Parts: sequence; structure tokens; C-alpha cells
Amino acid sequence: MAEASIRNAKSEIDGEEQTFKIRRLEISDKRKGYMELLGQLTVAGSVTDEEFDRRFEEISSYGDDHLICVIEDESSGRIAATGSVMIEKKFLRNCGKVGHIEDIVVDSGVRGKHLGKKVVEFLTDHCRSMGCYKVILDCSVENKVFYEKCGLFNRGIQMSKYFD
Amino acid sequence: MAEASIRNAKSEIDGEEQTFKIRRLEISDKRKGYMELLGQLTVAGSVTDEEFDRRFEEISSYGDDHLICVIEDESSGRIAATGSVMIEKKFLRNCGKVGHIEDIVVDSGVRGKHLGKKVVEFLTDHCRSMGCYKVILDCSVENKVFYEKCGLFNRGIQMSKYFD
Repeated sequence: MAEASIRNAKSEIDGEEQTFKIRRLEISDKRKGYMELLGQLTVAGSVTDEEFDRRFEEISSYGDDHLICVIEDESSGRIAATGSVMIEKKFLRNCGKVGHIEDIVVDSGVRGKHLGKKVVEFLTDHCRSMGCYKVILDCSVENKVFYEKCGLFNRGIQMSKYFD
Repeated sequence: MAEASIRNAKSEIDGEEQTFKIRRLEISDKRKGYMELLGQLTVAGSVTDEEFDRRFEEISSYGDDHLICVIEDESSGRIAATGSVMIEKKFLRNCGKVGHIEDIVVDSGVRGKHLGKKVVEFLTDHCRSMGCYKVILDCSVENKVFYEKCGLFNRGIQMSKYFD
């Protein structure tokens, strides 16, 4: 089922001289600059290959309930954009499901090509196909307009607590 | 491990004439008004016992990565408050983890007894013990002050998209 949904969702996005492929994260993407890309969003840290592989397997064990999508720049073999979604199973809304989108980032060298929007659409389509009644994400006020262009609307505020 | 964490976290909150016990959701809580309580937050729907049990087992299969906590009013045998937290496994922040708190609700008949704060603390303590670097939640602007009293701070905004 996971494989099929990747194949169905796989599509080409043609840039001026680049070909971008959108697909699910693969374990070999660490070698394609995936962690460096996350480092453009926040502190990525120095993750060893073993730590990466272990976390990859942990996330993979959730199957379609935790999907990480990437866009690969096929001309350079580097990961150009990513985003993830985790599906929450609730009791309310007739045992409804909600998609939580996280960690959308586009490489600074390839911005302006709508790759971020493609990532959000890929994740949103996944949530719809999984039967979610909504998809949500948190962002800064500065990114509100971008997500509105992706079809989302501001509903509330995010609260957070960091542990020492 | 799950059992131990429940026992450790179990505590009594003494009301004027009521005794409240905080613990993890049990499958028998549907008979104690759990769905009716969720209905005070949003549309709960008409969930059959079979649907409830199936969803309970699905959520239980995540172990400590998806915890639903309830406060039972022991004098009435009814569920007085609830909240849930889902732990997201990331690659960034050195393969960090984040707790997503959802669906905090206190029965309208027992408000003003700090039960909501107890639920948030229970869930937050769980996230800390699971090694999360932060806990987040979304709320309306009206509930900002309540969550600030729980030790959380406003960091951004929530965006959402509802499917038809």
C-alpha cells in the first residue's frame, strides 16, 4: 500500500534546467544532503549513519501514518525540499484522523520554483487519501501567506514549552 | 514500561467532596462518559463499542508514543477531564522527539478545580520522561492565558485545511 501510494504520487516538476522528482524519503537520502537541508530550518545536529538508520526504521514502522516526503534535484542528486506528516488517530469526530504537517524546508538555492507548495500538496493529498478530516501545521506569522496559497487558513495559535 | 509510568504518575487530587484520580485511558472508560466528555470539545459522533475498541487498540499499539490521559471523578465514576499526547520522532535536533498535545477538555460541571492544568502537567511530564526536547499544542487565542499558567508560551500560529 505504501509503495503504491508513492508510485501514484510520484510526479515530475520541470524547472528551467533541472528535473525534480517528489517521492517518499529513502534511507540513502542521508548521502544526498537530507540532514544539511534540515539544518536550513533549525539545528539538525551531527547524526551518525547508525542513528539515522535507526530513526528511519522507527519512522518506517508507522507505515503510512508517518510519511516524510522529499524532492530530489535529479541534475545534482541532492535533496532540494522536504516535509513530513504524522497522522493522529482520535476518538472524536467519529474516530477521525488528523494530519500534522511538520518541518517543511526548501533549499535556499532552489527557492521560487514552488517546491514548497508541491511538498505541502503531496502531504495534504496523502492525508486526504488516508481519510483524515483535516490537516494542520504550525508556522511563524511570516509564513502565513505561503500556507494560505497552499489552501490552509489560520485557525488558532501555537503554544510550546521547551525542556532544558 | 507503560504500566510503570502510569503507576508512577498516578496521583490523587482532592476536591471539596470529590476524589479525582489521574491515569491513562482504559477501554472501559467509554462506559464512564468519555465520549460525552469529548462532545463538550467538538463533534464526537456516535461511536459504537466495536469502533471504540478498535480505535483504542490502534492507539494502544503505539505504546508510550501516544498517551491519552483521563481524570476520573471517583465519587461519580465519571471521566471528568482528558487530554492526549502523540510523540513525533524527527531527524532534526539530533534525532529529537516532540510531544503534540491534543484534545484537552474538562467537564463543565467540575471546572475551576485545576483539572485541566493537572492533565497538561501529566502529559508534559510524560513527554519529558520520553526524552522530548519540547511539547507543543494549538489553541484558540481565548485559551492562551490558561496554557501560559501551564508553563507554555505562544510561539507561532496554527494553519489548517478541512477536507470535504
